[in-house]
Amino acid sequence: MLDLSAHESTLSEAVAANAARTFYAHWPEAPSGKIYGETANADGETAFKAQLNAPFTRLLQQGDGTWVGEETSPYGFPLGITYPASSVDTLISRATAAEIAWRSLTPQERAVILIEALERASKHFFEIGYSTMHTTGQGFVMSFQASGPHAFDRALEAVAMGYSAQAGFVENVTWSKPMGKMSVTIEKSYRIVPKGIDLVIGCSTFPVWNSVPGMFAGLVTGNAVIVKPHPAAIYPIAIVVAHLQQTLADCGLDPHVVQLAVDTVAHPSTMDLVLHPSVRIIDYTGGPTFGSLVEKEGMAAGKVVYTEKAGVNCAILESVDDLDSALDNLAFSLSLYGGQMCTAPQNIFIPQTGVRVGNDIVSVDDVAAKLREKVDALAHSEKVGPSTIGAVQNERTLDRVRAAEALGLEAVRPSGPLAQPGFDAARSVSPLILRADRTQDTVFEQEWFGPISFVISTESFEDALALVDRSIRTHGALTTIVYTTDPAKQERAEDVIVRAGAPVAFNFNSYVWVNQSAAFSDFHGAGCNPAGNATFADWSFVTNRYNVVGVRKQA
Amino acid sequence: MLDLSAHESTLSEAVAANAARTFYAHWPEAPSGKIYGETANADGETAFKAQLNAPFTRLLQQGDGTWVGEETSPYGFPLGITYPASSVDTLISRATAAEIAWRSLTPQERAVILIEALERASKHFFEIGYSTMHTTGQGFVMSFQASGPHAFDRALEAVAMGYSAQAGFVENVTWSKPMGKMSVTIEKSYRIVPKGIDLVIGCSTFPVWNSVPGMFAGLVTGNAVIVKPHPAAIYPIAIVVAHLQQTLADCGLDPHVVQLAVDTVAHPSTMDLVLHPSVRIIDYTGGPTFGSLVEKEGMAAGKVVYTEKAGVNCAILESVDDLDSALDNLAFSLSLYGGQMCTAPQNIFIPQTGVRVGNDIVSVDDVAAKLREKVDALAHSEKVGPSTIGAVQNERTLDRVRAAEALGLEAVRPSGPLAQPGFDAARSVSPLILRADRTQDTVFEQEWFGPISFVISTESFEDALALVDRSIRTHGALTTIVYTTDPAKQERAEDVIVRAGAPVAFNFNSYVWVNQSAAFSDFHGAGCNPAGNATFADWSFVTNRYNVVGVRKQA
Repeated sequence: MLDLSAHESTLSEAVAANAARTFYAHWPEAPSGKIYGETANADGETAFKAQLNAPFTRLLQQGDGTWVGEETSPYGFPLGITYPASSVDTLISRATAAEIAWRSLTPQERAVILIEALERASKHFFEIGYSTMHTTGQGFVMSFQASGPHAFDRALEAVAMGYSAQAGFVENVTWSKPMGKMSVTIEKSYRIVPKGIDLVIGCSTFPVWNSVPGMFAGLVTGNAVIVKPHPAAIYPIAIVVAHLQQTLADCGLDPHVVQLAVDTVAHPSTMDLVLHPSVRIIDYTGGPTFGSLVEKEGMAAGKVVYTEKAGVNCAILESVDDLDSALDNLAFSLSLYGGQMCTAPQNIFIPQTGVRVGNDIVSVDDVAAKLREKVDALAHSEKVGPSTIGAVQNERTLDRVRAAEALGLEAVRPSGPLAQPGFDAARSVSPLILRADRTQDTVFEQEWFGPISFVISTESFEDALALVDRSIRTHGALTTIVYTTDPAKQERAEDVIVRAGAPVAFNFNSYVWVNQSAAFSDFHGAGCNPAGNATFADWSFVTNRYNVVGVRKQA
Repeated sequence: MLDLSAHESTLSEAVAANAARTFYAHWPEAPSGKIYGETANADGETAFKAQLNAPFTRLLQQGDGTWVGEETSPYGFPLGITYPASSVDTLISRATAAEIAWRSLTPQERAVILIEALERASKHFFEIGYSTMHTTGQGFVMSFQASGPHAFDRALEAVAMGYSAQAGFVENVTWSKPMGKMSVTIEKSYRIVPKGIDLVIGCSTFPVWNSVPGMFAGLVTGNAVIVKPHPAAIYPIAIVVAHLQQTLADCGLDPHVVQLAVDTVAHPSTMDLVLHPSVRIIDYTGGPTFGSLVEKEGMAAGKVVYTEKAGVNCAILESVDDLDSALDNLAFSLSLYGGQMCTAPQNIFIPQTGVRVGNDIVSVDDVAAKLREKVDALAHSEKVGPSTIGAVQNERTLDRVRAAEALGLEAVRPSGPLAQPGFDAARSVSPLILRADRTQDTVFEQEWFGPISFVISTESFEDALALVDRSIRTHGALTTIVYTTDPAKQERAEDVIVRAGAPVAFNFNSYVWVNQSAAFSDFHGAGCNPAGNATFADWSFVTNRYNVVGVRKQA
């Protein structure tokens, strides 16, 4: 076994960070040569280019002889990478065999091995960044951060949560009960019994960030994990799986503790895996329709199912101290990765009387016009526009923009093509903002995933809050943001929105955006509304992945 | 608000005990006047007798005008007590109203209020004991212990677990992210959002012990609780509910945070409560058939369902140092409360070559004969027999004894009527032990709840272990006990049984029995076999009862 004792302090720090929830990051978020090495960017790009149009041979898992792969960059070229494909039965039987030794390790042994794998993979953040950019369409800096340091911090957070939960009881104890003049003694031990194989189903927009919490939570609690990425975004998570497998092998363990399950759009394997009786845990991130099916079928078969789907995220603008800083913040949230975040705001409710700014009132029209200015400024900026907005992952998202344009609503801001320098064939558009009335709820009370948002005038603040309350309860939400300077309205909004089961942010006007959540501090998702039942990472995200079984021996 | 700060040290001790799992008891188990007051027994008996044939007026909840009650003592007389009945809608609407203030308290505030209620109710352990004896049929000492100190320790354990889980993250924090020369600061809080109303469905054999873990876990995590006892065993838990309600009222809270839902066998309300959309958590203890229905319907409706049903508990006798002490222990386990414990052994597997005792081999016939002697000695002891075996709670259990007798199997020990001094009409019988062969698995591989067990000869130790493995996986088990002095066989049995998902005890030969589990040390149930998905009390027993929702404010 390697000497992994150095990772024990990392684990302790992460455990403490989870409890304290102050700012903590194990991996710096800046894609900087000073941090990651002066040649790291060039090395990453070279590795990325070398991988194009070639089989991905880094996995320690044999396929069934077939190599599949159909990834295409949203920036306009096919990746041409193939991955070894295995049948569901092969994946399951390998996982079942590999799990035996893995579950016999202590939680701390598992945790430090997983941290070692993360440290190794972190040396490849730039390749992970380029591969994320050219599968998801995110700009490079976001790709680097979301799939690199931010994702890895979420993975470490899950390792620490899972370790903490298991360490919450002693592993064994001598129990001695006083009985008058005598006593009776029993030697007890408490064995962690993992539920079984954990299937992690990934999505095409956040193939690493959204997958690693479930992967690492499943692994640290002793389960074998099968990672089933979206066929459009395999490369970034394949790098992570490869480093996990190599680390396991270097520790003398079966690398099949974690496996990559690749498939194609034409021949999907997800439901076969979901329904396989040996799969006992499912982590799903992705669209709500398929996610609800996975929830239903999985739960009916008695499996533990964690979902992070999507909902309809709302904003309310009632009053602000400074309209410019508020709308700068909101415009960035609408623009970042072209609204392709499950956390991006969609519906912006404004009382029809306008927004109070200090002692003034700014009309809904004027607020909408200023919001357009802010998005325009961002989208038209050669320096930051293309990289902030990125490219559109899926052609159907573009279709959705066309459908929204055809609704006949007034455009606060029309969507237009966006040039991505160096990538003439990129699929990229700027945000569309439509104007709606509160009576048009059948239009806006559904998810319009992508660069589509609505400015909606309401009768009052209370009316807006009632619409948000109903929307959260009916369609779910991963985020909510409210702008109000009135303490009573703030308290009222907090109570209503929290009670409805969604997180809420107030008056963001700086360099934190509602669509971003910080590992070790913010819970991602609430787990108590239709947008999903999982939270990265609360106790229930780890405690349902194993049982504790008692062994008692007469002393 | 009362000054409850004295309970903070009780809470701290219980939190520490849950982690350390050494012997810990907050309430002494001896029904002794030296501990509980010289008049406590007489006072309890007086209170019990005064309650007979009278309405139970201690609840702070109005009924709909109807008073119902049909409890009958298994010792042969009707209790004649009536309780205020409320419609399902009334119970739900009161719980919904009461929950608002309850959820706004901090976890620590809830915990100390619950401990105050337990302390108050503990002054009535003797009345709780008599009421348990005359609803369940347990002997008095067992009634006192199981519904008094042992149950209350389980309740305190659940309070401590729920408090610990909620205290695992700070309640609020100032988060400051360094960004080069500047930083951005967000004020964050983490709000506990209880799932909703927790329905606790009780059973007739352990109306307090089996109900309080779910009740107190639900309450400490901020949920309102509706306690639905079995119509045959309302009185003991009604005392606990009354003290909870009075404590809540004395703290200025709505007593309807906890309510008693009474019904009758002819007009049951359980499924109406289970299916009510406002019920979000269900704690079920009782028979497997109805329990599986509650699980299925509850989970299909998206509720959190905790079950503690029953299974088929197995024993293996392979080798012992001292056959007498081993069989004394086993005979007591078979006899205690006439086998009416979900933890009592049913199937005793012995290799057909006999049991090795030191250097000798004792044949299966001789082991069976000695087991009979041990049970006879206990059953025929005027001093301990009647109180150990107690009375039969349910007429159908007696029918089951008759059905077992009619199987045509050789009786190792026949069942016979048992006199209960002072109660000539008591429904009481001594244990029936039948002899079976491993091929008669269709007979013994089902639950024979009550004073019915089987001595089954197997081909070998491995054969016995294979049968136990299959039985746990197919029918579930709450306990397993194995007698072997061979370390290799012990290790092998531990691996197989723990992997199958059941707890295992080895070589018990003293004053600890496999059917008893100690609060703060033993987990009751494993939660990972068909006998139930709940464990008193691991993390998942508390962490699924609430969510944590983040609130972020720009600083």
